[in-house]
This record gives sequence, structure tokens and C-alpha cells, in this order.
Amino acid sequence: MKKNIFSFDDTSARKLKNKKNILGGKGANLGEMGRLGLPVPPGFTITTKVCDIFYQNNKKLPKKTVKNIEKELKKIEKKTKKKFGDLENPLLVSVRSGARISMPGMMDTILNLGLNDKTVVALKNKTSNGRFAKDSYRRFIQMYSNVVLGIEGHLFEELIDNYKLTKGVLLDTDLDEEDWDGLIKNFKELIKKEKKIQFPQDVKQQLIGAINAVFLSWNSQRAKTYRKLNQIPDNWGTAVNIQAMVFGNMGKNCSTGVAFTRNPSTGEKNFFGEFLINAQGEDVVAGTRTPQYITSKSKREAGANEPSMEEVMPKVYKELTKVFLKLEKHYRDMQDIEFTVENNKLWMLQTRSGKRTAKAAIKIAVDMVKEKLISKKEAILRIDPNTLDTLLHPTLDDKVKKEIVATGLPASPGAASGKVVFTADEAERLNEMMQDTILVRLETSPEDIHGMHAAKGILTARGGMTSHAAVVARGMGRPCVSGSSEITIDYDAKHFKAGNVIIKEGELITIDGGSGKVMKGKVPTVKPEISGYFSTIMKWTDQFRKLKVRTNAETEADCKTAREFGAEGIGLCRTEHMFFDEERILSVRQMILSKSKEDRNNALEKLLPYQKNDFKKIFNVMFNLPVTVRLLDPPLHEFLPKTERDIEEVARSLNLAAKEVKERISELHEENPMLGHRGCRLGISFPEIYEMQCEAIFEALVELKKEKIKTALVEIMIPLVSTDTELKILRKLVDSIANKIEKKNKIKLKYMVGTMIELPRAALQAKSISKYADFFSFGTNDLTQTTLGISRDDSGKFLSDYIDNKIFEIDPFVSIDQNGVGELVELASQRGRKANKRIKLGICGEHGGDPKSIDFCSKTGLNYVSCSPFRVPIARLAAAQAELRK
Amino acid sequence: MKKNIFSFDDTSARKLKNKKNILGGKGANLGEMGRLGLPVPPGFTITTKVCDIFYQNNKKLPKKTVKNIEKELKKIEKKTKKKFGDLENPLLVSVRSGARISMPGMMDTILNLGLNDKTVVALKNKTSNGRFAKDSYRRFIQMYSNVVLGIEGHLFEELIDNYKLTKGVLLDTDLDEEDWDGLIKNFKELIKKEKKIQFPQDVKQQLIGAINAVFLSWNSQRAKTYRKLNQIPDNWGTAVNIQAMVFGNMGKNCSTGVAFTRNPSTGEKNFFGEFLINAQGEDVVAGTRTPQYITSKSKREAGANEPSMEEVMPKVYKELTKVFLKLEKHYRDMQDIEFTVENNKLWMLQTRSGKRTAKAAIKIAVDMVKEKLISKKEAILRIDPNTLDTLLHPTLDDKVKKEIVATGLPASPGAASGKVVFTADEAERLNEMMQDTILVRLETSPEDIHGMHAAKGILTARGGMTSHAAVVARGMGRPCVSGSSEITIDYDAKHFKAGNVIIKEGELITIDGGSGKVMKGKVPTVKPEISGYFSTIMKWTDQFRKLKVRTNAETEADCKTAREFGAEGIGLCRTEHMFFDEERILSVRQMILSKSKEDRNNALEKLLPYQKNDFKKIFNVMFNLPVTVRLLDPPLHEFLPKTERDIEEVARSLNLAAKEVKERISELHEENPMLGHRGCRLGISFPEIYEMQCEAIFEALVELKKEKIKTALVEIMIPLVSTDTELKILRKLVDSIANKIEKKNKIKLKYMVGTMIELPRAALQAKSISKYADFFSFGTNDLTQTTLGISRDDSGKFLSDYIDNKIFEIDPFVSIDQNGVGELVELASQRGRKANKRIKLGICGEHGGDPKSIDFCSKTGLNYVSCSPFRVPIARLAAAQAELRK
Repeated sequence: MKKNIFSFDDTSARKLKNKKNILGGKGANLGEMGRLGLPVPPGFTITTKVCDIFYQNNKKLPKKTVKNIEKELKKIEKKTKKKFGDLENPLLVSVRSGARISMPGMMDTILNLGLNDKTVVALKNKTSNGRFAKDSYRRFIQMYSNVVLGIEGHLFEELIDNYKLTKGVLLDTDLDEEDWDGLIKNFKELIKKEKKIQFPQDVKQQLIGAINAVFLSWNSQRAKTYRKLNQIPDNWGTAVNIQAMVFGNMGKNCSTGVAFTRNPSTGEKNFFGEFLINAQGEDVVAGTRTPQYITSKSKREAGANEPSMEEVMPKVYKELTKVFLKLEKHYRDMQDIEFTVENNKLWMLQTRSGKRTAKAAIKIAVDMVKEKLISKKEAILRIDPNTLDTLLHPTLDDKVKKEIVATGLPASPGAASGKVVFTADEAERLNEMMQDTILVRLETSPEDIHGMHAAKGILTARGGMTSHAAVVARGMGRPCVSGSSEITIDYDAKHFKAGNVIIKEGELITIDGGSGKVMKGKVPTVKPEISGYFSTIMKWTDQFRKLKVRTNAETEADCKTAREFGAEGIGLCRTEHMFFDEERILSVRQMILSKSKEDRNNALEKLLPYQKNDFKKIFNVMFNLPVTVRLLDPPLHEFLPKTERDIEEVARSLNLAAKEVKERISELHEENPMLGHRGCRLGISFPEIYEMQCEAIFEALVELKKEKIKTALVEIMIPLVSTDTELKILRKLVDSIANKIEKKNKIKLKYMVGTMIELPRAALQAKSISKYADFFSFGTNDLTQTTLGISRDDSGKFLSDYIDNKIFEIDPFVSIDQNGVGELVELASQRGRKANKRIKLGICGEHGGDPKSIDFCSKTGLNYVSCSPFRVPIARLAAAQAELRK
Repeated sequence: MKKNIFSFDDTSARKLKNKKNILGGKGANLGEMGRLGLPVPPGFTITTKVCDIFYQNNKKLPKKTVKNIEKELKKIEKKTKKKFGDLENPLLVSVRSGARISMPGMMDTILNLGLNDKTVVALKNKTSNGRFAKDSYRRFIQMYSNVVLGIEGHLFEELIDNYKLTKGVLLDTDLDEEDWDGLIKNFKELIKKEKKIQFPQDVKQQLIGAINAVFLSWNSQRAKTYRKLNQIPDNWGTAVNIQAMVFGNMGKNCSTGVAFTRNPSTGEKNFFGEFLINAQGEDVVAGTRTPQYITSKSKREAGANEPSMEEVMPKVYKELTKVFLKLEKHYRDMQDIEFTVENNKLWMLQTRSGKRTAKAAIKIAVDMVKEKLISKKEAILRIDPNTLDTLLHPTLDDKVKKEIVATGLPASPGAASGKVVFTADEAERLNEMMQDTILVRLETSPEDIHGMHAAKGILTARGGMTSHAAVVARGMGRPCVSGSSEITIDYDAKHFKAGNVIIKEGELITIDGGSGKVMKGKVPTVKPEISGYFSTIMKWTDQFRKLKVRTNAETEADCKTAREFGAEGIGLCRTEHMFFDEERILSVRQMILSKSKEDRNNALEKLLPYQKNDFKKIFNVMFNLPVTVRLLDPPLHEFLPKTERDIEEVARSLNLAAKEVKERISELHEENPMLGHRGCRLGISFPEIYEMQCEAIFEALVELKKEKIKTALVEIMIPLVSTDTELKILRKLVDSIANKIEKKNKIKLKYMVGTMIELPRAALQAKSISKYADFFSFGTNDLTQTTLGISRDDSGKFLSDYIDNKIFEIDPFVSIDQNGVGELVELASQRGRKANKRIKLGICGEHGGDPKSIDFCSKTGLNYVSCSPFRVPIARLAAAQAELRK
């Protein structure tokens, strides 16, 4: 098709393959409405191809194109019964750019084109509104001078400001027709002085100048920069839209408004919108006048006084509702609409899919399926998984004023208020007295877990989105703001500073883990309600997704939450979290401080019943589902006390000299604990620890069986493997303990043994490792740390520099680095499956709850993802979407 | 060829393709000598194929084989003029196993076979030595009973012990003919009691039994275990050697000895060896009698009294020298020989390539090329590169007794003695007073560098072969023993404990960095002499190798040393090492403690002239060679003080409150500095630091040019890159500084920009990164840390468990992990070269000085390796060998 210009009602445009590529976003959209027979002000689109031609033709429009433009203009004249440049009923047009995708503020627009010294008089006469006509003309001169003639806009603004100063008024609305007349004169003088020309009075010259200027604006510096930053190819070009002007500000039977076809905040199937009589589009947005409601229902519900459109313009309202229905049916989605009423005539200016809250998105999607507007698949694809978070956590009451004292990273969603405490013990003490607290720490460590449990929220000054605080808080579903570098904590003085504000221990603060804000005082929160719509969508996702969704959990409560949210097993049960309980930590420390294997075994024996009972509870809650238990992973020094006082206390309770404890601590000190004596390396050095843990697991299984209680399918996971030999040795250890317990109880045990792939070498060696593994679970947190060489605890110091410099698009601990870490995951999956066809593949890093990463996992062909309990619904949705996108 | 038995002089064996596979090591060797016409006691080899047949035939020898064995035995009888089982001149034989490769102690041997109650009398008569005959008989009974009949050896030993107790004597030599007679009777009774049989008197039955037993011993439990541990296939099987016995202990005209065809310790071309008259092989080894020299020359030189073989057995000696010459000519290598003289008749029992010192290896190789015995290529391949280390460093005097108090890892070769000091400052203080010290630290840090320079040697309690101490010490050529977990340092008490020994500050100790030993007191050392032979070999290596050899150095002195050792450039010049100098560290700290960019720039300006002058010196020493300068790499906190006292001192000198300094230290603290804010991340966050360094580099070049001093080819290296964008940004920074200085001085600068590949992601992304890189230098230290997830500073805690469990064959920081890290290096090389054909590839990790790793680099097609100055000769040799092995 060689056609380079399409009018908005040109049905031949239906045949265009990539409408937006050729017509631009705006042109495609207006044409779509035009062809639907909706009242769109007549107009046409000059395609992006002409932009190409324009640049090839020495930045000039070919004569043929100019002729075609004139031909299309004639059509507008015919439809509007106005004439371009006419001295009685002049046609005014807008000239707008329209690229393939929106480049807000980057490209140029000219309104009211067609006005000159003569047509402005005609406009005045026609509308009987001299001020309107002159105001329109001066606006046109301003825009045209800036866009086409290249005179800086502030020069005109200065003239207006000076004029108002002389006249002693403040607002543009204080200027009348004569004032604008005077200013128009001044504007013309300015143009003459700056450009040595008269302002063009020939309307055709105006039009061609404007079109040329729009094409030229594609290569303006700011547009180039914008494209570079947003990776938009330079050769796309822009289209140009010429459209008849309509005015909502020509009198009482004029108006302008915006509307949604359904309620964007609740999703209810009611029209929802606002309008203003005798106003322009900007007035609705600017908020200088209070808009009126469109429907009487919403007017009543809001208790507003001003009448609704339904009441004051009943005919136009009725027409509008028909348009709404037509658009929804056509676009099969809730629409966000702009309209203008000129002399009781409705004109549609814009329609697009409307933004909505998570709650509304879900309700609209479910409703539209019931209305047979869309399929279940479409419904699923329409919901942004990340927004579900807001539905599952308490949120701050929007209506209340907040005193924000600092911001940090939105590490774990939800809002919480409480008294500031600086130690885990204090959080626990106040919790026992039924007082809510926010635990404020430089950073948290596994020692703080009991306090994190006891507190309502966590605030840290250091650490990123995947710092200890963030990870643990998300796992618990506790709100958390991490890495708030704006606060300075003084533990000794028991306060923290945020700017000039000092917040003392015991003072109330509120944190919003969804936005990273820290507020003074208690801000009321709104509790989440999980609707039937939510459950419906969740059920639908299960019909489509292939990826299973498990959870990372190690307490009975978390397991229950996760199962309620639809978790299909546990992908990561971190046994060390069970070690920090007050009753056990002493035995753990005793074990670590032991000098002989015998002493160590004695201490381990004391721990065994605790671990066994933990496992019994978890296995029972997760009955019939797989539970992956990871054997001890962190370095032993994480369990030892850090402060002088704690060291002395531990020494006393273990009957040791403080010096001995300190010596052991110093012995265990590591420069880089992340790369130290941890994971399966502990199992190799101290097999007795892993033996105890396996015994606890298998005895839990045996006891449940004997007590006839339903139980889970146990998968034992060996962490931090980098060679096949490690797994071979430790698999043998697991099997030998199983064997021992089978013999003792005359029971056959079912279990799997697998490993985490969390080191680059493990990924590379997947072939040989898979021979000893029933499953691989990609530990992408650590795999990201090692592949990128970035400690997530320390990344806060430079990650923002990296995002600023566009080195990373997004924190690689939040969304998986598909090029680097991703290649290793793919490679390990292929090599592992090739050597062991029955191997199960999953992911248990923080990425397991990130939609983009889930999409990657789906493409890579993993069997499951595992994430924190509160992200299970997000993962279910994302997994279904990933499948549907394939 | 279907022949399954080969006599030692059977020339048809020459046609066998894999002699050792078929005849076993020992059989091939004896046959080789036999076919050379040397006096080998006659005998034959039953091939490994028969071992197969034996097991297929229900563990029996086929009749045909038995017949063939009898036939071969007849040949021996003919040659020796003795008869098997004869009552006058009986033939005795040995039956020995002989597998493809030596399995020391694993398989069985029977000597003196052919003795029975009657032939022993014949032997007595023939030798006129009753005691010898009976002693031989009882030995045979013992061995046979153990090997063939399966009676435990200790039962016979107990009988002998009891007998001696009864008789009241201590030694076997105190027993006479009659005693042995009695014991033979007891032995026979024991056999009857244990196995209900008589000791076999039929010599043929003895022989077949012994052969069967040798074949059976291939599948004994200990042999199987040995094969498993050493990865020897079970199906190789063993050969059996039957050989006529000869005796060196039948009287004064008998003797036995060992000899080398050249001096194995100096390499001099003189026969060298020892012998004993009227003795057996064991006697020479056991050391109960002092052996005599073989040549009169060595007797004279040693000032020995006992006459030489040359003097007492001149005829045999002459024959022996002929054999020596023949063997060297045949094997084209220095031989280690065993011989026996029976009644003035020389018999050769063994020959093999002799072990030798590095010094001897070099001299022998060079001499043999001159003698046209071997080619230059062969000469190069014969020297173990690792042994060169001993030639370049002082070694401990072998003759002095040592009191070893502890051992650690042999981290940096050479021996050193000095007073124990526990701080770098003390080492420096004493150095100024011309006193030698050994710096003893838990571990070292960059802060200790001045002390490491000042000390004669370094001893640490923690850290592996590539800990800071080890790496720096090797770089400096300082002896170092690292990770000596046997010592406990008490800094407060100023002493360290090693077992029960307490060594105080100021006490003298000696360390041997080649063996890892720590000794009390001063042990005299021997200085190395670099011989002309060494230079010759080094020159030859350069004719063959393609891999260039550079060095890692950053001081003028090290550069000079390296260039003398043949370094062809600097592969890694660590600019941060220049920061620790006392004059500069204050400015460095000021820079780090700066709160504004301005303050930082001021501090950097002070550093600039220092860096510039360093570069001028280095560039000049390395004129015409490439010098790779790495921009700042370590995290900034490494430069800050650690102790309370130092903090206060720094605060004072910078006019800051100690609290401020502490706050900044706490701000900069990192959980995992290895994965923290370092490398190019510093360049991204603080471009002014890299700008200063580039300025220093380019200004150094400009000044040298202006001063008309020869200079080096500068390559600027950006460390720790993981994305192409990092390199793109920083390359731009380098170019812009170069540009600035070019304009300022109107000089065109030549330089390259490249990066280290030291993170797995960098290796994976080599394609995109290579677009901005003129070279890649593989930083395999860090690449090993991240790929394996092992911190080299912390690896000491579990690495020994890993070696013990055979998880690692060798410390992966010593020799490159070819499967894991190696795959990444290969992959990055391929991807990098594909995208950028002119890219230069090198390695600058510690592995650059390890022969195995150099072989890997050569195979992977790298252009150069870089290693510490003292390893340059090793690398040159290893690189040549790698090329020759291709």
C-alpha cells in the first residue's frame, strides 16, 4: 500500500499490519475510534513513512504530499462545514506528533492553527466571545513561534508577566480581550526583532511549517537523548496528526472531561469520571476549579453539591454512555477517556486502557470473563503480579497526613507502627507486654531473629533489598525498610537521627515497607481483605501454569500461611533458623565451642529432639507435599555472641573462661564469611552435625508414621556444593543414617537427596554432580553474589551508582541477571538433565518471587520456583502468565 | 603375537608395541638389559596376558603354559649350568610380580625358590657356607608360607623371637647354622598345624604355587584398594618374572651395590656409587654397615679409609664402567643402577632413570646435549620446573641439626633467620638498626607491607598458599611460612606458642619457606649460585616457547630482578602497593576520609607526583616492554588504621576527631570485602581516583619522552569488571585524560586499555566486554575465589579436609582448577577472540607461575603468563615444555 495519509475514518487503514508503526500511537488510536463511528473531530494522519521521505528529501515535503494534505484538508472542511482560512467560519486545526510509542514531553504540538489577524475576527464573531478568540490566537502565536520559528518560549512569558505587572493583576484570567490584543501586538514585534520576519498570515504556510517542524522535532537534541536512554531506534520516525479543533470553553453548553468505563480504584462496573462546564482539558487536570461528577450515583455517594453531567447535560451524557459501552466492547478492557462537548456536541479526543489498582484489576478481569468480554487467559495476563503485594499487607490510610522523616529501600511490603527499640531483646520484652515495636538496627544478623519476630516492623540503616533484614522480613511477612542511609543510629544514646529530627527509644514511628517511607508517630493502617475475586483469579492461574510454586519457610506458622496462599510444597527449609531459639542456642554454642568430637556429639544430642519436633510440625502441615530441608548452611561463627557482655554470659553458662570463648571466636573469624567455611564444607569437616540433622529428619518421619499422622515428601538438600565428590560423600552420609534408622525401626523411608546450585563451578559441573542428585535447587542469591562478585550485604554502597550509570537496569538481587547468572542456570539445567533425565529442577533464591525471574525460570524449563509465603500468589500468577506468553 | 612368555634376552620382544603393558615395568626393564647383552641373571617374564588367562581359567595356569614355563626354566638351567632341584648344583630362582606401573609394597615376591631339605644341603656344600644355606632356606619357607600358603608372617617372627629369647641373644646375626636348622623344624611344624600340610618339597610344585600366588595377589584387598586410590584399572593385570638367584653374600669375592652414572647431586660426569663386600642388597640400604665408594676419586674426595671397588675388584669395576656407558647411551639419561657380584661375576639387577637435584638435572641435561646424547628439546623436557625454585633462593644447610618447633604451608620458598617481631613497625625499626627479623602475624594485611619488606621472612598462623602474606612474600621473593595452625600468637604477651615451646619477641627463629618448617635458633643457610648451565637452559627455552612470560611487580627493585630473570614485561603492576609508603598513606587516608569531592581531589593531588615518579622508574626499567598497570583495586577501608592507637594518630595528623575517623571506618566496613566496593566499582563511584592515576601514568610517559629516556609500552587495566558498560565508561575516562594530557603537551600518547577477567560474569560476557578491551588479563586468583565460592584468606580452615577427602587433588589457588575455572577461561578466550580478533590474552593470577597451569594456558592459546619475579625462570621453562608437549 503506497498510501501515506489516512483520514481517521479511512477503513483501508484496517488492513495495515502494524498500525502503530505506521500511524503512530495517537493516530492509530484516533483512527480506531473514527472507524468505529465515534464522534472524533475529523482529521488525518501523515504516516511515519513520510517522516523518512521528509529526511531523504532534504527536510522538505514532496509536492505530491503537500497536494494530498490539501486534499485531506478539504475533507475536514466538508465534514465540519468550516473552511481553512475562511473569514466567516474558519477551520482551526491541531498539529500533533505521534510516534510508535509515547515519548511524553519530547515532541511538539501546535493548537489553534489557522488563526491569523483576519480569521481571529471571524472566530470572535462566530462565538460571540472576543476574549476566547484573542486568547486562542495568542496561544497559537506562542506555540507556533516556539515550535516552528524557534523563539524561546520564556520570552513570551516575560512579556505577559510584564504586562500583568503594569496592569497590577496576578492571573491570566484577569486579562480581557483588549489586554490580549495588546499582547498579540507585542508578540509580533518580538518575532520581528528575533527573526526579522512577520508572523505568517497565510494559513497554508502555517500548516506546512507546522508539519515540517513536527518532523524536525524527531531529531531535536532532547528527542535523541530520550531515545538513547530508552533504547528507541532512530529510524522509527514520527507520524503527524492534523485534526479539527473543538472547544469546551465556548460557553455554558460546552464542557470537557475525563472518564473511566469502570471504577479504577474498586473495579466496580460503574462509569466513573469528572467534567467541567465551559472549560478546557487543562482546567480539569490543573485543579483550579472543582470538577463535577459525571454520574448522579457517584455524585450522591460522594455527597457532592454540584450537579452531575447526567443531570445537566442528559442528552450528551446518554450519548457518552453509549460511547463507553462501544469502546469497552471494542477494546475489551476498561477505558480511560477524554472528551469535549462543544455546543452540546460530544467529541471524543482520546481513549486508552485505564490504569487501575490491584484490587480493581482483579475485579475487572474476573467480571469481564463473566461478561464474556475476555477469556480467562486474557484475564490472567492483565494483572501485574507485583501489584498483588498491596492486597496482602496492611496499607497506610491514604486520608491521613504523614510526617515523613526518612526513606529507605522498600524491602518488605506492608505498613506497621510501634515504639522504637534498638535491640532484639527489647522488642521481645515489649512484645510480652503486648506493646508493638519497630526494631531499628544498623543491620540485622541471625541473632536478631527473635526480635524481628517480636517486632511489628524492621528498619535498618544499612543493607540492600536482599540484606539479612530484607530477606528474613519478607519471609516472615514483616514490613521492613532497609538501607535507610538517611538515619544515623546512636546505640549508646538510644536514639536515631533523621535529618534534624531525633527519635528516641520508645517514641512511636510508622514504616511503610511498600514505599520505603519512615514516618513520625502512628499512622493508621487499613487491613487487607482477600476477596472472592482474588481467589477466583488464583484458581484460574492454576489451570494454566506448569511451573509449581513452593515456599521458603521453616516455622509452622509460615508453612500454614504459605499453604493457605497455595504453596505446593517447601522449596527451602533453612534448618539453621531453628537454632536461634533461646532454648537451643546454648547447645548450639556448646557444640561450636567443643574441642573434641565427643563434646560436640554431646551438645548435638541435646539439639536433636528440638530439631525432630520442628520437623514433625512442618512435615505435618505440608502433608502430601514435598519439603526440601537444607542442612546447616551458615558459618559457625554466626551463632556465637558478639558483644563483650554476651560473650561473658555465654562463657558463664557454659562454664568456660571468657578468654576461651573469645579465642574460639577469633579462631572462627573469617575475612569473607560468604566464601568461607559454610555449607557442605561444614558437613565435610564436621560430619556429626549433618548426621544429627539427618537423624532428626528421619526420626520425625518415623514417629509421624507410627503416630499415623500424615506427612510430607522429604527432600534433603546439601548446600554450597562445587564438586561431585562433596555430594557423593554427603549423600553417602545421608543414606547411611537413613539405613540405620530404617533398621532400628524396621520401616522403609522415602526421601530424595539433592543439592543447591549456588556456585558458578557447580553450574559448570552440573553433569558430574547430577549423577548424585535427585534434584537441583538453584540458590540464585548466592549464585548472583559469586557470578557477579557482589556481596549483597555490601552492595548498598555502590548499587545506586550502578543503577544511575545504567550499568544495571535493576538490582540483580531483585530480578535475576539473565545474561550472566541466567546463562549459568540454563547451562546447568541442560547439563544436569542430559546426564540425569529424571532430575527435578527448581529455584529457591529470592528471585523465586519475582515475576520477571519467574518468566525466565519458565522459559528455562525449571519444574518449580520457591518464594516467601507472602509472594506465593504473585508467583502463581507470574507462572501462569509465563506459560501463556510462550 | 601369541607368545606369552619372553626370556630376558628374547629379541622378539623388541617388536612388542607396549612393552610395559605386556611385560610389566620390571620385566621390560630386565629384558631391555638382557637384550643389550648385559650380564642379567637369566630369567623370563610371564606376560600380563597370562594373568587374564589365569583368571578366565578358574584361577589355574593352563597346562600349555606350565609346559612353556618348564621349557623356559630349562634355558635358565642351561645358561647358569645349574639344575632346578638338583642335589649338587641346584638352581634357585626369584618369583616377582611386575605390573605396568610400580605398586610399591602391594604385590608379592618370593626369593630362593628351589630350596628344599635336600637342595639346601647341596647349596651348603657348593658354597661351603652352612649358615648361608640354612638362612636362605628359612627365608624361603617364611616368604612362601606367607605368600603362597597364606600363613600370617608374624607367627614365624614370633618363633624366631622366642628362640632368641631362649638362647639369650638379640640379633639374627647371633644365630648360627644349627639355630636356623632348629627354626626350620619349628617352621615346618607351624605350617602343619596351621594348614594341615607338609611344606612342599617338590620344586616344580613350589614354582607353580608361587606363580599362582603372584597372580592371585593382583586381586588381594590391599592391591585393589591401592588401585582404587591411584585410579589404576583392574584389568591391567600383573606379569610374573622368574629369574635365577645371584648372591652377593657368599664370601669375599661377592658384593652388592648401587650406583649412578653421574653425580645425582651436582650432575658432574663421574660415576658415583657405593658397595658392600659379602652383603645383600638390603644391607646397603639398611645402613648397619658403612658402604665403600665405587670409584677411587670419590673415595679420595670424601677422605674415606675403606678401599674403593676400583681398588679391590678392579676387573669387575672395569666391567661395571662399561655397563654404565652402555646403559647411558641406550637410555640417553643418567641411570640409577643395582648390581650384585657373585664370585667375581657381575650381575645387573636393576636400572632406571636416576632421581637428581635441580642443579644436577640442569647440568646433566646441558652436558648430554653437548655430548649429542639428547636434543635440546629433550633437555628442556627433562627438568621439573618446580625444582628451579631451590636454585633461586637460599637453602638451609643440610649438615646442621635443626630443632623444628612447628610446620605450616610452604608459601614462599627460601630460608631465613631473624629475631621474632610481631608488628610491621618493629620489623622496620630493627631493620634500620641492621637487625634481621622474622615478622610473625596471625595474618598480614596491606598495612604490613613495609614490615614485610623490612623483615627477612614472614610467618603467619592463618591463611593459605595464596593468602595475602603468601602472595606478597612470593612477589617480594621473601621466604614465608603461612597458615601454621600449630602456633598460637599472643600479641599482648609478645610471644607465640608452638606445642610446648614458647618463643618470645626478640628470640631467633629460622623459617624454611620451601618446606614450611619453623625452627628454633639460627640455622645456617647456603646462598644460591646461578650457574652458566642454568643460563644455557633458559636461553634454550626461549627458542621453543610461544607463551610470553611477564612478571607481577611494582617496585623498581622487583622489576629489575624480573628483567634479569628474563621477564618480557609486567603483566600486573598493582598501583595500590605504592599507596602504603609512609609518606603517602596519610594523603591516601585523607582522600578516603574526605567528605566532598573537592577535599578528595586535594588529597589526590598530593598523591599524584608520588605515583608519577613510581611509574617513571618502572617504565624506564621495563623500557621497550609492555607494562600493564592496574588501577586501584582494593576496597578503601584496607588503607585505614585498625587499632585504637593508630586511629587516634591518624585523626590527629588529619586534624579530625577520632570519632569522625571511627565513623568513617564503620561506614566503610564490609561483611565480605572480597565481594565489596572495590575494583572498577571505585572508579565508577569515585572517578577522580582513577583520573588521578591515569594522569600520573600519562604524565610519567610525557616526562620520560621529554627527558629522552627510554620507556615502556603502557597497558592500562580496569579491574573487577562484570559488564561491558563498566569498561565502556571507564575506558572513556582513560581516553579523556589521555586526550587532555596530549593537548596540554602536544604529544601523541601510545597506550592500550583492557580489563581483568576475574569474575564468572565477565568470562560469560567476554563477547560484549571484548568490544571495549585491547586485552584481557585473567585474574585467576579472584576468578577461583568466585567460581568456587572460596575465600583464599579463609580457605585454610577446611582446605586440608578437602585434600584429605580427595575433593581437591591440589589447592586450587596453587594450580588452576581446569574443570571449573578453566572452562570459564577457555570460554572467555573463545568469546573474546571471536568478537575482537586482535585482543591480547594473558593471565596474571598466582597460577601464572605454576607449571601445570602454564601448560593449561598454553593449550588454551593465551599470549602470555605473568608471575612473581622469582618464578619467571620456572614459567619460561614450563612454557617451553608446554609447547614441546603439544
